[in-house]
Amino acid sequence: MLSILAQGLLAASVVAVNNGLARTPQMGWNNWNSLGCDVSEALLLDTSRKLVDFGLRDVGYNYVLLDDCWQDGRGDDGYIRVDEQKFPHGLKWVAGQLHDQGLLYGMYSSSGEFTCARYEGSLDHEEEDAKSFASWDVDYLKYDNCYHRGRFGYPEVSFNRYNVMAKALKATKRDILFSLCTWGEDYVHTWGMSIANSWRVSGDIYDHFNRPDALCSCTDAKDPFCVAPGTHCSVMNIINRVAPYVDKGAPGGWNDLDMLEVGIGGMSDAEYVAHFSMWAAIKSPLLIGADLRTLSPEALSILNNPAVIAVSQDPLGKSAALVSRNLTVPKDQYGEGETQIWSGPLYPNDQLVIFLNAANEDLEIITSLDEIFVRHGPGGSAPHTKEKWDLYDLWAKRMDTSVAKKVINSPPGTLNGVKGWYNSTETPYKAGLEAGDERLLGTKVGVAAPGEIKVKVPRHSLKMYRMRSQKGPIKGYTITRDEL
Amino acid sequence: MLSILAQGLLAASVVAVNNGLARTPQMGWNNWNSLGCDVSEALLLDTSRKLVDFGLRDVGYNYVLLDDCWQDGRGDDGYIRVDEQKFPHGLKWVAGQLHDQGLLYGMYSSSGEFTCARYEGSLDHEEEDAKSFASWDVDYLKYDNCYHRGRFGYPEVSFNRYNVMAKALKATKRDILFSLCTWGEDYVHTWGMSIANSWRVSGDIYDHFNRPDALCSCTDAKDPFCVAPGTHCSVMNIINRVAPYVDKGAPGGWNDLDMLEVGIGGMSDAEYVAHFSMWAAIKSPLLIGADLRTLSPEALSILNNPAVIAVSQDPLGKSAALVSRNLTVPKDQYGEGETQIWSGPLYPNDQLVIFLNAANEDLEIITSLDEIFVRHGPGGSAPHTKEKWDLYDLWAKRMDTSVAKKVINSPPGTLNGVKGWYNSTETPYKAGLEAGDERLLGTKVGVAAPGEIKVKVPRHSLKMYRMRSQKGPIKGYTITRDEL
Amino acid sequence: MLSILAQGLLAASVVAVNNGLARTPQMGWNNWNSLGCDVSEALLLDTSRKLVDFGLRDVGYNYVLLDDCWQDGRGDDGYIRVDEQKFPHGLKWVAGQLHDQGLLYGMYSSSGEFTCARYEGSLDHEEEDAKSFASWDVDYLKYDNCYHRGRFGYPEVSFNRYNVMAKALKATKRDILFSLCTWGEDYVHTWGMSIANSWRVSGDIYDHFNRPDALCSCTDAKDPFCVAPGTHCSVMNIINRVAPYVDKGAPGGWNDLDMLEVGIGGMSDAEYVAHFSMWAAIKSPLLIGADLRTLSPEALSILNNPAVIAVSQDPLGKSAALVSRNLTVPKDQYGEGETQIWSGPLYPNDQLVIFLNAANEDLEIITSLDEIFVRHGPGGSAPHTKEKWDLYDLWAKRMDTSVAKKVINSPPGTLNGVKGWYNSTETPYKAGLEAGDERLLGTKVGVAAPGEIKVKVPRHSLKMYRMRSQKGPIKGYTITRDEL
Amino acid sequence: MLSILAQGLLAASVVAVNNGLARTPQMGWNNWNSLGCDVSEALLLDTSRKLVDFGLRDVGYNYVLLDDCWQDGRGDDGYIRVDEQKFPHGLKWVAGQLHDQGLLYGMYSSSGEFTCARYEGSLDHEEEDAKSFASWDVDYLKYDNCYHRGRFGYPEVSFNRYNVMAKALKATKRDILFSLCTWGEDYVHTWGMSIANSWRVSGDIYDHFNRPDALCSCTDAKDPFCVAPGTHCSVMNIINRVAPYVDKGAPGGWNDLDMLEVGIGGMSDAEYVAHFSMWAAIKSPLLIGADLRTLSPEALSILNNPAVIAVSQDPLGKSAALVSRNLTVPKDQYGEGETQIWSGPLYPNDQLVIFLNAANEDLEIITSLDEIFVRHGPGGSAPHTKEKWDLYDLWAKRMDTSVAKKVINSPPGTLNGVKGWYNSTETPYKAGLEAGDERLLGTKVGVAAPGEIKVKVPRHSLKMYRMRSQKGPIKGYTITRDEL
Repeated sequence: MLSILAQGLLAASVVAVNNGLARTPQMGWNNWNSLGCDVSEALLLDTSRKLVDFGLRDVGYNYVLLDDCWQDGRGDDGYIRVDEQKFPHGLKWVAGQLHDQGLLYGMYSSSGEFTCARYEGSLDHEEEDAKSFASWDVDYLKYDNCYHRGRFGYPEVSFNRYNVMAKALKATKRDILFSLCTWGEDYVHTWGMSIANSWRVSGDIYDHFNRPDALCSCTDAKDPFCVAPGTHCSVMNIINRVAPYVDKGAPGGWNDLDMLEVGIGGMSDAEYVAHFSMWAAIKSPLLIGADLRTLSPEALSILNNPAVIAVSQDPLGKSAALVSRNLTVPKDQYGEGETQIWSGPLYPNDQLVIFLNAANEDLEIITSLDEIFVRHGPGGSAPHTKEKWDLYDLWAKRMDTSVAKKVINSPPGTLNGVKGWYNSTETPYKAGLEAGDERLLGTKVGVAAPGEIKVKVPRHSLKMYRMRSQKGPIKGYTITRDEL
Repeated sequence: MLSILAQGLLAASVVAVNNGLARTPQMGWNNWNSLGCDVSEALLLDTSRKLVDFGLRDVGYNYVLLDDCWQDGRGDDGYIRVDEQKFPHGLKWVAGQLHDQGLLYGMYSSSGEFTCARYEGSLDHEEEDAKSFASWDVDYLKYDNCYHRGRFGYPEVSFNRYNVMAKALKATKRDILFSLCTWGEDYVHTWGMSIANSWRVSGDIYDHFNRPDALCSCTDAKDPFCVAPGTHCSVMNIINRVAPYVDKGAPGGWNDLDMLEVGIGGMSDAEYVAHFSMWAAIKSPLLIGADLRTLSPEALSILNNPAVIAVSQDPLGKSAALVSRNLTVPKDQYGEGETQIWSGPLYPNDQLVIFLNAANEDLEIITSLDEIFVRHGPGGSAPHTKEKWDLYDLWAKRMDTSVAKKVINSPPGTLNGVKGWYNSTETPYKAGLEAGDERLLGTKVGVAAPGEIKVKVPRHSLKMYRMRSQKGPIKGYTITRDEL
Repeated sequence: MLSILAQGLLAASVVAVNNGLARTPQMGWNNWNSLGCDVSEALLLDTSRKLVDFGLRDVGYNYVLLDDCWQDGRGDDGYIRVDEQKFPHGLKWVAGQLHDQGLLYGMYSSSGEFTCARYEGSLDHEEEDAKSFASWDVDYLKYDNCYHRGRFGYPEVSFNRYNVMAKALKATKRDILFSLCTWGEDYVHTWGMSIANSWRVSGDIYDHFNRPDALCSCTDAKDPFCVAPGTHCSVMNIINRVAPYVDKGAPGGWNDLDMLEVGIGGMSDAEYVAHFSMWAAIKSPLLIGADLRTLSPEALSILNNPAVIAVSQDPLGKSAALVSRNLTVPKDQYGEGETQIWSGPLYPNDQLVIFLNAANEDLEIITSLDEIFVRHGPGGSAPHTKEKWDLYDLWAKRMDTSVAKKVINSPPGTLNGVKGWYNSTETPYKAGLEAGDERLLGTKVGVAAPGEIKVKVPRHSLKMYRMRSQKGPIKGYTITRDEL
Repeated sequence: MLSILAQGLLAASVVAVNNGLARTPQMGWNNWNSLGCDVSEALLLDTSRKLVDFGLRDVGYNYVLLDDCWQDGRGDDGYIRVDEQKFPHGLKWVAGQLHDQGLLYGMYSSSGEFTCARYEGSLDHEEEDAKSFASWDVDYLKYDNCYHRGRFGYPEVSFNRYNVMAKALKATKRDILFSLCTWGEDYVHTWGMSIANSWRVSGDIYDHFNRPDALCSCTDAKDPFCVAPGTHCSVMNIINRVAPYVDKGAPGGWNDLDMLEVGIGGMSDAEYVAHFSMWAAIKSPLLIGADLRTLSPEALSILNNPAVIAVSQDPLGKSAALVSRNLTVPKDQYGEGETQIWSGPLYPNDQLVIFLNAANEDLEIITSLDEIFVRHGPGGSAPHTKEKWDLYDLWAKRMDTSVAKKVINSPPGTLNGVKGWYNSTETPYKAGLEAGDERLLGTKVGVAAPGEIKVKVPRHSLKMYRMRSQKGPIKGYTITRDEL
């Protein structure tokens, strides 16, 4: 059935938004989570050099995204103006500087009369603004949802509003990755891929693992009409929001879980590892939110783990899915607590499995091959459940803090000497996987066989394994529809 | 009051979609559940021969349905192209082969820019595609809901989108059964019958009796705005979804509970029996999903039970309805467990009753004539509750496995010698019922009288009885509106 | 403040649907609940004579309503045809017969391509059908909601669909009471009064006090988007549906709780008393659903109680409202059980209070004047809470069964001799109240004073009192907005 | 980062409704809550004099608002008529009288065919009515939502309906504060600021602290589609409704929690203090609802507290937000009971914190700086959590009842001798805060330091503190997006 699978992917390569971009989830950096409106030319240039020097560009982070607050109103000619104090050389010059370093340049606007920070928005000025973006050599547009003048509330209204910009971008003839910041409203997961490369599924993330906040009121994953998606959504809130439709992401169009909080300071190291791993497994865009000028070594060693990034950039482009959820576990001060098991296919014939402990205690999580492969055939009917699988721990080869510190502290351009740095430009992840690159496979730590499988997972952390069948690809019974 | 009843049926014969088709729920075979995109000319022809040889055509399965993945893009002339590798003789030739065997031919497309498997869809090309289908002598169109470009979210938008194809099909002058695959969205049960012969009420079925899956998130039957109807919906999930509006199915337009999983492998034999029985009782289309080339004898002997099919094809065309539900029963590992009692009228004056045990233990289910006939008058006010009723077990005459094995393994065309095979082409179910054919009535196993009625039902199975009054038709008090 | 109140009523007399009808909730008879499609000229004429002979016309039941199933398709001229077998003299002749007896004539159609019984509907033929109704001297149109071709789902769509008929009726220049049968969909209680005299708030009633049925799935009063309002809604289900917006009914436009089941046979006498009392208190139309040809004396003595009808026809036109609900009471086999207290103002300065026991045991219900007058000022701030109030039991003067039997069994036209029969044509309820007619006031049975008030109420019944201040009208503190 | 903050505010000064009004929440008086339709010229003039004499104008209450019931139909010329009995000199004359006293004049209409009290509405007459209002020198329009003829149900429909009046007002060239009375429907908090200066978030308030009422059925803050926002919503109901989107209020456009009940009589003094404090903290308009002719000294001393009004009129214009909610506390007779902690930034570098006890007992509420500053950085990552903060009780300087009594009882124009009366016309709140005016700062009562913070709060009351860092402004880590 693999031929069918390949065919499905081929077919996918020409569908939907059809701009050829985001065949795997986009990666990069965005200033908002750590710096908000404090943007400037210097910030972007400093950051671009850090991306290169820290090896982050080489593992895949190639978009530098300028978020809100760069605007200075709109001229009488209808064209938006750039704040010259923040960007004295203009934005085209910035783009050039980034392009020269092998990076791409992204910007932000809102499908509203104002942006969320109350600057000039693009609503009813989409054509002028798309032309401006193209003229500035922009490669990416994050497009927000504030101040829409009531033009939302059911899918067609939102689709039409966003489609105006999609068509304006297409008319520029420049390939611009289009990223909808729609907060999961109006069932965007059912239509986002027709006009864009990614779509947000929740309110804004904030820097906490699982605390519910009154300003992120959409806690029922099944409710499409929540009053306020909000601005203080925890990692667990977002994971649970997207769980019902992780399958809507596919090459060319992805569920966007919002930018990463890794390294900003509100979570523990293990929580950041879990946050990053889940974003990779669910095939969210991976956009660093931390200020690279003050990045900690621990954060760097999470963000640059090629074994986990290889999951994000997997050639199959299929999200892991939630196969088990246990709510009868110890709760914390917020009344929150649960464990989850996620699994999904990985290229070429592997399986990803994640044991996520969001309970308030260290726990042993129990599963079986029947459960891990339930979507290959329920009730133990998949042949995969009869085999033995090697387990590769994808966090075992995480960079040492001492090495990460050295990377961060070395003078620019001197770091080629640090070993263990994966270069995906030279060796794309698909090639690396086919070559059996150990940096992508992780470290073999055990075997999963028929019967009960138990994994100890500390509080607020996860275990993440690549499973590989000991007897090679399993060609037996396949639920083909799951593979397409 | 029977004259009124007859009049109601007569009136019904000219209403709604008004193409004269699906006067009883359609029956047939569809490749998707077991084979997904692995379609070909050979598959359809092999299957058609098995339908004939196994006697399945004769009990009523007369549609051979080709699902997704037959397309090869769209030509410059606007007409959709067929994959010539899969269908070297073209689809009109396939239709001819099927018609020659007394079978009908159905196809699939989506009311979207792409199909769910990301092939070419029919949205905004409805006229060309309807013409193609008619030119290929197609008799049935399953019409899906993926990639609709935001054109859904309230009933009028979906109605209008689907109505374009309905009108295009009508314009071809060919009678093509029109089957909406709308996943229960936008209250399709309130308008589907105006343009189509059936409409899906849930996300896609998967091969499990009752396991909740994160990808089938619509678990509240009363919620029309679930985020993702999904692709992993269990038999019990679907039954509970449709329970509030089973009465919306009527001759010409039916609630579609999705294709059968019988014989695919994820459920026990008793679970498959329950699945098939409920689909028949609720008047869903009965579309075999198993690969007939590898069909087990057990599965065949479920699918070919004429006593249960006679319920599906009953001349009254009235779904059974849920009259009692008990959630305080032993739960399984998923937290699921319930029992249900369903009942409904059968031609000519009989009553169907089903005792469904979806709890985690064998149980005795208790009811009364008051409950079974509650819709003929609540509170025991129906005269039916004063009578004695013979109970006929509709599964008692199930074909022996040894006979089914013989049917499956015999050379083509040699099976006429196997006895007990009902031929609904020669003797339609209505005629068979009027003639008192024992193969349709099942086996009398007891009597239901006023007072407590207790039935032992093993875990994950059901008991299904046709009830017949010992003193003949009851002409007394009638809730006429229930009969129309 | 009473002058303001009067002014409010005066203003109301020209607003909204503005046809001058239904200044108090309409009263009459409709065949559907007991006879469904079994309609005929004879039925209507027989019934009209019973209405007169039983004194029901005189207490206010003056509309004779023919429900569904009178149609015989639509002619080539676009005009709907009448079933000549059922109505050999035509409908204009029927209207004349009714008018001659001092009765009014009503009919039924649906804002759909078909009626609910699948006869010809009026959708897209509103003008022709309105002309037909007017030409037949019709005084009332019940207008249903089946087969609307997807034209619903948000208020504007439904409003527009129904408004077509409203305008068509107005264009006929005949005063035709317009009754929307919208099942509470699309927030009809917020716009129904702009085009119609009443609007249904729930799925169809059925003849049970509180049994939940799978076919009446809208059990959450706060949910406007239930999948299927249904056809088997109990009395308690409907009361709870309307409780949040009982205040939307006002002279000229009323919340319609559906036709009465009194006397049909599925409920106890006390349940029917409760059903009838609540319909009167909430200012629902009062439409007898029983077959008058077989009406029991007990049912007659419920339907003809002028003390309760005076509540329905109260000049203030203000619904009672739910002031207290207790769910922690004994439950029945369906898991149902609750008690409720309702109160509201009555003309001229009285207060209605109802103690409804829908629990599974006889109970003592406790309240206080603070609670009864909470809407005149919460927290005991209303001056009404400082006074003593005489309690008049509105069911104390219920007609004796022996007298009712005599009324039913006497030859036509001979009953003038039976005493105690209120004639509201001669003495409208307002005049009767002003004259202190004892038949309207009920019987004084006690006094309510500040402090705890306890009332014993048997299972599934209610106590219903008119309260009258011992010291006369209370002119103190008034929440004026409540009075308008 | 303060420069960014200032910039944000600057940008805000030209956005959205863009009429320059309501840079801080509007303050004033409205007749509805205490007097309903009992309006007259005399009432407005009497009230205006009381506002001046009681010093209420000087602390900021400068709008005198005439609510419903002033209309007398519409003339043949399409212009609305004023009730000449109530307003013999006409409304322009009234406006002049108010303007002469340094007050502003507001009026009421409804975006419906009728007002809620069933007088003439403005729907489809917006231009004529806006011209009338401007011609009468009106400064404020409260615009209601009754009788909208089905034109609601999703945001665009409501936006368009209200926008007609917004444009008509703008076309008059007069600056008229536009206040939407939309009851929180159709997500008005996402679009209200584009056309108006405030928008109601709930059904009408009534004079009770927390009693649930059947006529205020929207109890789930997350549900935008409640059947009936209602007319009997308690203080706690409204607070919980708005909690998910308090951040939507900003200079120029505010969440409106409805008019104040302070002094009307249904709540205790402590409940009124809590009600008033929360309205100020959430930046609701502050509109006195009591009849000033009978105002109690206790009510006056709540309404005129400049330390709390300074919170309402804070230059940052940022609502406090709910940071903690505890439902596991003693419940009252209605099953209600909870405690809440609210916090938010105050000008220039202070923090507001409120401990609200809505439980049924006196309680000790426990928190920490981590929780109070969670929105400056979760998990204790904000530097604010490392400092010591002085706590200023904002109710400590409440006017003595004896003084308030003197203010109320003194002859007009003689009160200048009363001390302690803040004049915000002479010294705007921003200037007062910068000058360190003790009347605005309250009284220092303690210090909050890292570690557990415990505050005893009596049943149904709150503690409200301004926190000021002992070491001055904290410039460290800032979540910039929270500051814009």
